Amino acid sequence: MPRYRMTIEYDGTSFCGWQRQDGQPTVQGSIEDAISRLGERAVTLFGAGRTDTGVHALGQVAHVDLDKVWLPEKLMAAINAQIRPDPVSVFDVLQVDEQFHARFSATARHYEFHIRDGRTPPALDRNRVWWVPYGLDERAMHEAAQTLVGRHDFTTFRSSQCQSKSPVKTLDRLDVAREGRDIVVRASARSFLHNQVRSLVGTLKLAGEGKWSAVDIHDALKVCDRSRCGPVAPPDGLYLVQVDY
Amino acid sequence: MPRYRMTIEYDGTSFCGWQRQDGQPTVQGSIEDAISRLGERAVTLFGAGRTDTGVHALGQVAHVDLDKVWLPEKLMAAINAQIRPDPVSVFDVLQVDEQFHARFSATARHYEFHIRDGRTPPALDRNRVWWVPYGLDERAMHEAAQTLVGRHDFTTFRSSQCQSKSPVKTLDRLDVAREGRDIVVRASARSFLHNQVRSLVGTLKLAGEGKWSAVDIHDALKVCDRSRCGPVAPPDGLYLVQVDY
Repeated sequence: MPRYRMTIEYDGTSFCGWQRQDGQPTVQGSIEDAISRLGERAVTLFGAGRTDTGVHALGQVAHVDLDKVWLPEKLMAAINAQIRPDPVSVFDVLQVDEQFHARFSATARHYEFHIRDGRTPPALDRNRVWWVPYGLDERAMHEAAQTLVGRHDFTTFRSSQCQSKSPVKTLDRLDVAREGRDIVVRASARSFLHNQVRSLVGTLKLAGEGKWSAVDIHDALKVCDRSRCGPVAPPDGLYLVQVDY
Repeated sequence: MPRYRMTIEYDGTSFCGWQRQDGQPTVQGSIEDAISRLGERAVTLFGAGRTDTGVHALGQVAHVDLDKVWLPEKLMAAINAQIRPDPVSVFDVLQVDEQFHARFSATARHYEFHIRDGRTPPALDRNRVWWVPYGLDERAMHEAAQTLVGRHDFTTFRSSQCQSKSPVKTLDRLDVAREGRDIVVRASARSFLHNQVRSLVGTLKLAGEGKWSAVDIHDALKVCDRSRCGPVAPPDGLYLVQVDY
């Protein structure tokens, strides 16, 4: 059976996350249903990352095995036509060999988190940013973030529902910078724990408010205690932007 | 009565335009209703431009006369709190004198129109861009646009429902450039005719497709004939970005 890889953009606002759940709108379900309407039998789509409810993607990657051999461009156009009006689109569709696995072959995942700080609530970017109604110090956030980069036990920044075997991960990048109206946090790693980025961002916000120092944040990491995590950031500002293979 | 000026951002997707209409969701109605809930009597908001259904704003400006004297910051916060969950927010609230009129005092209006060209339909930017599913030549569009800049009779690019006394307007700027994934058209004038920007963009698209030359577009302007306008662009990509006083 030919295997196809695709890159996917979606607005996560109206979805109960990536992973198919009966009776709930999910991104995986939306794409699988679109493929079924092309005359393929029930298919299973494997995604690089299982984004949560409300989390967006600019570059999620998935693979699927199909019965029929498709020209990649035709497959892309056919899925996009069937998927409407759901806010999902697929691009960069390629036929790949059976060694390729969207989840297990990935060598790096890149996320962005957008914070809108200031007194004006977002209108056009509602559900697309985390609105914090006062100014944050992005330099303090960046400085604190650097104490989290590297190989660590990230138990403090891990959801209690995380199914990963080990809490030890290598965080390759955690940069914080002001870009236009937003503070953007960029996080890169081979893989992340469940809720790790939102937990990190929620804790960095404490540094941005001047409540926690970089040392406080490093201490929270070192004690490996979930109760020391700051309030987890909401999903609205989180984007899966790229997956490397 | 004290007069207040405010700048307004909105997502026009779910509104039947700016102007209040009984029984329809409109931006003017949304803000007027929010102000009424502050204990002010029925107020009328005057906007700089009456944007159509589906058109967005990053910097609409309006004024309103109120009974009570408000601290501008408190008025802003109170309106924003009352307006939720509508995708509208007000900022830069100022008390102004009675000479100020949002519509008549404006010296320039600046619009942007975003076109997403290419085979991938927008997902996150659905309703925020005009999707054209093939590539356009933005340089040809820019060249053609320059033949429209200046003082002209814009009858060709004017809605049949336009209420302006004269079709003669001075177009100060009509620039077309590729920015990221979009082609952005920037239009500036003291004032515009009804549907003028969308009519101009719809016609420039013909230049981007290679169907019309810059000369064809200039000829369409010169004949002052509405039937010579290209298909009017949809509202989704249009933003009122700034009003000058």
